[in-house]
Amino acid sequence: MMIQAAPQAISSLNPLTDAELHKIDAYWHACNYLAVGMIYLRDNPLLKESLQSSQIKHRLLGHWGASPALSFTYIHCNRLIKKYDLDMIFMAGPGHGAPGVLGPVYLEGTYSEIYPDKSEDAEGMQRFFKQFSFPGFIGSHVTPETPGSIHEGGELGYSVSHAYGAVLDNPDLIVTCVVGDGESETGPLATSWHSNKFINPARDGAVLPVLNLNGYKIANPTILARISHEELECLFKGYGYTPYFVEGKNPAEMHQKMAAVMEECVLKIREVQQEARTTGKIERPRWPMIVLRTPKGWTGPQEVDGKKVEDFWRSHQVPMGGMHDNPDHLRKLEEWMRGYKPEELFDENGTLIPELKELAPMGNRRMGSNPHANGGLLRKALKLPNFHDLAINIGEQHGTVEFENTKALGLFMREIMRDNPDNFRLMGPDETASNRLQDVYQVTKKVWMADMYPEDEDGTELSRDGRVMEMLSEHTLQGWLETYLLTGRHGLFHTYEAFAHVVDSMFNQHAKWLNICRNHVPWRRSVSSLNILLSSLVWRQDHNGFSHQDPGYVDLVTNKSPDVVRLYFPPDANCLLSVADHCFRSVDYINVIISDKQKHLQYLSIDEAVAHCTKGIGIWDWASNDDCGIEPDEPDVVMACCGDIPTMESLAATAILREEFPWLKVRFVNVVDLFKLVSEGEHPHGLSDRDFDSLFTRDKPMIFNFHGYPWLIHKLVYRRSNQERIHVRGYKEQGNINTPLELAIKNEVDRFNLVIDVIDRVPKLGSAAGHAKERMRNKIIECLAYAHTHGKDQDEIVDWRWPYSEMCE
Amino acid sequence: MMIQAAPQAISSLNPLTDAELHKIDAYWHACNYLAVGMIYLRDNPLLKESLQSSQIKHRLLGHWGASPALSFTYIHCNRLIKKYDLDMIFMAGPGHGAPGVLGPVYLEGTYSEIYPDKSEDAEGMQRFFKQFSFPGFIGSHVTPETPGSIHEGGELGYSVSHAYGAVLDNPDLIVTCVVGDGESETGPLATSWHSNKFINPARDGAVLPVLNLNGYKIANPTILARISHEELECLFKGYGYTPYFVEGKNPAEMHQKMAAVMEECVLKIREVQQEARTTGKIERPRWPMIVLRTPKGWTGPQEVDGKKVEDFWRSHQVPMGGMHDNPDHLRKLEEWMRGYKPEELFDENGTLIPELKELAPMGNRRMGSNPHANGGLLRKALKLPNFHDLAINIGEQHGTVEFENTKALGLFMREIMRDNPDNFRLMGPDETASNRLQDVYQVTKKVWMADMYPEDEDGTELSRDGRVMEMLSEHTLQGWLETYLLTGRHGLFHTYEAFAHVVDSMFNQHAKWLNICRNHVPWRRSVSSLNILLSSLVWRQDHNGFSHQDPGYVDLVTNKSPDVVRLYFPPDANCLLSVADHCFRSVDYINVIISDKQKHLQYLSIDEAVAHCTKGIGIWDWASNDDCGIEPDEPDVVMACCGDIPTMESLAATAILREEFPWLKVRFVNVVDLFKLVSEGEHPHGLSDRDFDSLFTRDKPMIFNFHGYPWLIHKLVYRRSNQERIHVRGYKEQGNINTPLELAIKNEVDRFNLVIDVIDRVPKLGSAAGHAKERMRNKIIECLAYAHTHGKDQDEIVDWRWPYSEMCE
Repeated sequence: MMIQAAPQAISSLNPLTDAELHKIDAYWHACNYLAVGMIYLRDNPLLKESLQSSQIKHRLLGHWGASPALSFTYIHCNRLIKKYDLDMIFMAGPGHGAPGVLGPVYLEGTYSEIYPDKSEDAEGMQRFFKQFSFPGFIGSHVTPETPGSIHEGGELGYSVSHAYGAVLDNPDLIVTCVVGDGESETGPLATSWHSNKFINPARDGAVLPVLNLNGYKIANPTILARISHEELECLFKGYGYTPYFVEGKNPAEMHQKMAAVMEECVLKIREVQQEARTTGKIERPRWPMIVLRTPKGWTGPQEVDGKKVEDFWRSHQVPMGGMHDNPDHLRKLEEWMRGYKPEELFDENGTLIPELKELAPMGNRRMGSNPHANGGLLRKALKLPNFHDLAINIGEQHGTVEFENTKALGLFMREIMRDNPDNFRLMGPDETASNRLQDVYQVTKKVWMADMYPEDEDGTELSRDGRVMEMLSEHTLQGWLETYLLTGRHGLFHTYEAFAHVVDSMFNQHAKWLNICRNHVPWRRSVSSLNILLSSLVWRQDHNGFSHQDPGYVDLVTNKSPDVVRLYFPPDANCLLSVADHCFRSVDYINVIISDKQKHLQYLSIDEAVAHCTKGIGIWDWASNDDCGIEPDEPDVVMACCGDIPTMESLAATAILREEFPWLKVRFVNVVDLFKLVSEGEHPHGLSDRDFDSLFTRDKPMIFNFHGYPWLIHKLVYRRSNQERIHVRGYKEQGNINTPLELAIKNEVDRFNLVIDVIDRVPKLGSAAGHAKERMRNKIIECLAYAHTHGKDQDEIVDWRWPYSEMCE
Repeated sequence: MMIQAAPQAISSLNPLTDAELHKIDAYWHACNYLAVGMIYLRDNPLLKESLQSSQIKHRLLGHWGASPALSFTYIHCNRLIKKYDLDMIFMAGPGHGAPGVLGPVYLEGTYSEIYPDKSEDAEGMQRFFKQFSFPGFIGSHVTPETPGSIHEGGELGYSVSHAYGAVLDNPDLIVTCVVGDGESETGPLATSWHSNKFINPARDGAVLPVLNLNGYKIANPTILARISHEELECLFKGYGYTPYFVEGKNPAEMHQKMAAVMEECVLKIREVQQEARTTGKIERPRWPMIVLRTPKGWTGPQEVDGKKVEDFWRSHQVPMGGMHDNPDHLRKLEEWMRGYKPEELFDENGTLIPELKELAPMGNRRMGSNPHANGGLLRKALKLPNFHDLAINIGEQHGTVEFENTKALGLFMREIMRDNPDNFRLMGPDETASNRLQDVYQVTKKVWMADMYPEDEDGTELSRDGRVMEMLSEHTLQGWLETYLLTGRHGLFHTYEAFAHVVDSMFNQHAKWLNICRNHVPWRRSVSSLNILLSSLVWRQDHNGFSHQDPGYVDLVTNKSPDVVRLYFPPDANCLLSVADHCFRSVDYINVIISDKQKHLQYLSIDEAVAHCTKGIGIWDWASNDDCGIEPDEPDVVMACCGDIPTMESLAATAILREEFPWLKVRFVNVVDLFKLVSEGEHPHGLSDRDFDSLFTRDKPMIFNFHGYPWLIHKLVYRRSNQERIHVRGYKEQGNINTPLELAIKNEVDRFNLVIDVIDRVPKLGSAAGHAKERMRNKIIECLAYAHTHGKDQDEIVDWRWPYSEMCE
């Protein structure tokens, strides 16, 4: 079969000498042999004796289908790494592709170096086979245990965004990214091809995508394998690539084609980079990409029991089962494996023969050993400015000055991006300015490699060399950032709170990755935490309405391993600075920070903020009057709150309570670190019961005003004493086009309803309670009427300020 | 500007007469006038007097940028609907596009018919203006309150999949779907273009996508507006369309171009359909689509305060503010509005003049009144077979026969799809057979309009006229199904449990849509529930491992309004049949059914299953021994469970307890309907405290074995008495490549750990307890060792059957 429609002449159609071809094919035989061995064998790894059913695993798990094309691509990468001394890593997009990667990683020696018991001999190979997809050992995805992997591929859709994230600010790195044609049908993958509009050839490395059309998913053909050649070519030209086609099934022909095309692509990449780097003329190239059309389960059994297997969906997983009952299948398996001629590939001891061994690169040039794929090795700590210098002056009284909370973070990141010019990226879906982080533009713009217009001078903040990244795809952004971090760098992803749910599953997968690395893969070095800022919060969706109101991302976070997740609700700008500083220093976590972008009252000076955030939870003495030396310390009620807006409403309620019931002892507790609420055995941040009770008392009414869905708090505190006294307010899906106060009232997190909550729960308030309650209800009616008539909140309510310098007067 | 590169000659380049052009442009002026009025005015709707700042809304909310192109397209649809008597509905993809849709819906009279106080006169117009983006009224998305809308567009990414879902099995329907260029960057949108590979021109209707390149998002250009014309054209050819380009800004020229191109497209659609329907030759056409390049904020202010606004991102939202402080802006607004010449468009009373009125279609041909956009009007109840006929015979004893639970649902759906051949679709990402639903293929195959190969005869189950839909995009599938339901039909979406998180945000948005319809939009008729089956559950991921283990979708569901969400965990196949029958009859809910695909023990006969599922929760007498007439009814311990696998383990634990402690009184409670656990005030299904206590006792130890994350149960029961006696087991992120029993043990939901839990919590077990506990621990060690040695569960454990015909012997 000819290389079809390659848009440029390939430099040489048969670049491999016969000897080279023979060796590279033999090396591929070794890879395929290992892949089959992993799936089937628990013993007799070199087939030194005739295969017995007792040597076959009891349960046949693992996936053959994608493996041969993966190792095929891997070894062609090896050839070019050696030839051009390339700095290259490999990503395997196709699901369950591990056998196609583990094979070459073992053959190049990396695997045995990291796992010495999987040595390069028969005994090691037997262990290597047995551990695969075997209970308690390694899975069939390219999991964190796999040297050289920073992309697991368990959940499909992220290989291309992951590939691009790794090459940002890594000018010499090339990521060869094999993309499955099944995966290509996912939304995240379909848009991630546009990542090429954000790659600066002078500053960033390059991705070489290899779309492997093996034609089938689990039980279906794939769309991209069943459209016309013209459509396929158009699609990738439309995505901005120059597609090269390598199609066929004859191994010898395919090796020559792949060798020629890959070399052409690598040279093209180098040429483009070279030109940009020498001329300084930075335009978007049409980067090369390869369409590799191969049979699914290539070189596997053609037919089993009269049914087509090779080049069909039936080779997706295990192409033949029943090894313990069907001698015919057992014989067929042995024939299949012997067809690769293991005796010509491995020596007596089971070690790859030197003539083949030399095909792999050496040392850190081996893709399994490349330090970019264990980014902690390369990670430099951020140079962090002293955030105290950026502190917001809160004036003489707490809660009187207003400031846009997230703006403080923007200022902080401006300093960070100035001091760490090639080591930090800020990513968000078209919302950097909307989320009030625009001060970063003073030091770096938004990167944009698509067309520029003269009017871009006038406020689009675009440039070819910016490090702020905006695309309306949360999937792509998070994908980029994940591997930017996994290759040893730093960053932050910010998004509208409600639409963080778009990437729920990516959060899950990254949390699982970190969890495994932390607990089971000691050779992986620590990487920067994935820092996520949720802004444009549920409580400030005046003009977006119900569809933009969803604080449930936090619930998702609580379900992942306490080893890797952290949740912060800084109540004001100084607290946000303190929290952010902590997060930027941390490693191996996912830190989720919830902070609104609108103007909010500022409560704590920077020193108070640091003290408060360091504890993560605490009594605000200045807002409490339970400890004024007149009566014992125990308050009548605890006003607890978590989140910027709930804090303001709880504080306002406390002020009203003070006016209405001057003798009522109120304790005010603010929560920054949500996991403080959890019992100490359940999360490393969890308070002991003793500490919890000393903050919240054992039995006093506690009115907890929460940013999110209220029963999340009940879930977190379920082990604490006297649950029935804990009354939680939060968002309960009551929303529309509402003013801030109206929305608070509808969900009963507002000051007036909180006062009513206290009245309903503190028996000693006596006869004054009824009147006060009535006043609160009237206030609510008045506020709603005002909002609906005037289209805005009643000013004197909104403009409320904390009225007391000290509660204990 | 010329129509560029339209691949086919347009029949007439200037199809509109001068009179027609004048009228259509005037109609568009009216639309734009209304859009501006909605954003700015609270009074003086017809500008009969000079505009005063007091007539301007206090807060200017809403989005001008996308509106003009939306109404432009809408009125060109109107022209063709009238000319060809088309059955057409309109979808507005661009975010915040409501003003561009509300305008023409009001002008065609639909709005006033549905909302009589928004009458077609000055008074009605004033109310129509004021309500928009005004607290307590309607939002700036095309929310459920908008007549003709079945796509809100609050969260971006789903317009195209929604458009395609509506036309399935609706041969005469055309959906004109305006796609925003911002939205186009999302993953879900990027892959949904491939929906054209699933549309059969003989049987289904057609989608006419109109990609509106207005160039900008909130603060950025869009990718598709900044690539070369050649790339853009290639991209859509690659997606399988024939793109037509309508580009420019001169209204007169643009009207002519749009009229010509849209007519060409509609005729092309009709021709393609006609040919397929008359010849029976069903191939995939290259459906037409339109690229409409217009300035953002078209016809709005060119500049404000010296800054470019029209055709720039600054016209995204409100192009000018400060109306109450800046007389210049106020004057400019008045000029802008008067530029549309309202006095020539509306008569003295504020009614659109008859010469323009006649441009809109009549009655149900108006897109705001088309019944497809209020699908409950068209909905026919499913013809449901008697599921008792499909019952699984459970033999003489409970818990002895094994069956693949979801297979029963496949049989049920086979019957449904046979009896409702044009009214039910089954959708899943390449997993219909994997999830054991393949019996549906006996009556209908998977629809596939891409290329077919001879080998497809051999088991791919593809056909041109199938109604099973598989694509590896959960987003696209759920999008299709949502509008298939909203247009009055029925269906089910099934997916791997862990990857339901991929569409978390779509679940949220659909739940919000249903919630608003149910509680605030009385004219919307009930539609079929969105039925979601989660299979391939967390507990059976032997070969997929940790990345595929996530039961947290259920947590997400619990956060949405109790009016619209339902959760079912049928423990066996007969219960699944009963639950499914209930779900298929229901309306206006999202029903989530969690049921595994592997072989499981069968517990209940079909009559028992119906009785049990109707209650939703209940004591299994045959597994309990607390009510045998010997002692009082109160048990010593309650073994509660929810989910198929937890039920088996709890039952096994109960059997062990019976052997170890024959005198221990155990009550066995199974939960099918998870919301039964919630207090009655919190969910319509919630049990009263009295009923809860009568099932679970008030204070006895309760060992709750749950399918998902354990503390979800604590969250649900937080109001129940004596929480501390409720001990929950569930998945806690402990997983890898594990056998089923090993995974259960790691997460402590297995029989042995449950017995230990009982021993630890029931004091009266006395000295026997210590020995029993030791035996359990040994059993655990033995099982794990066996799994790691043999690669499978210990057979005698896995093959366990319920040993007693009756617990009270």
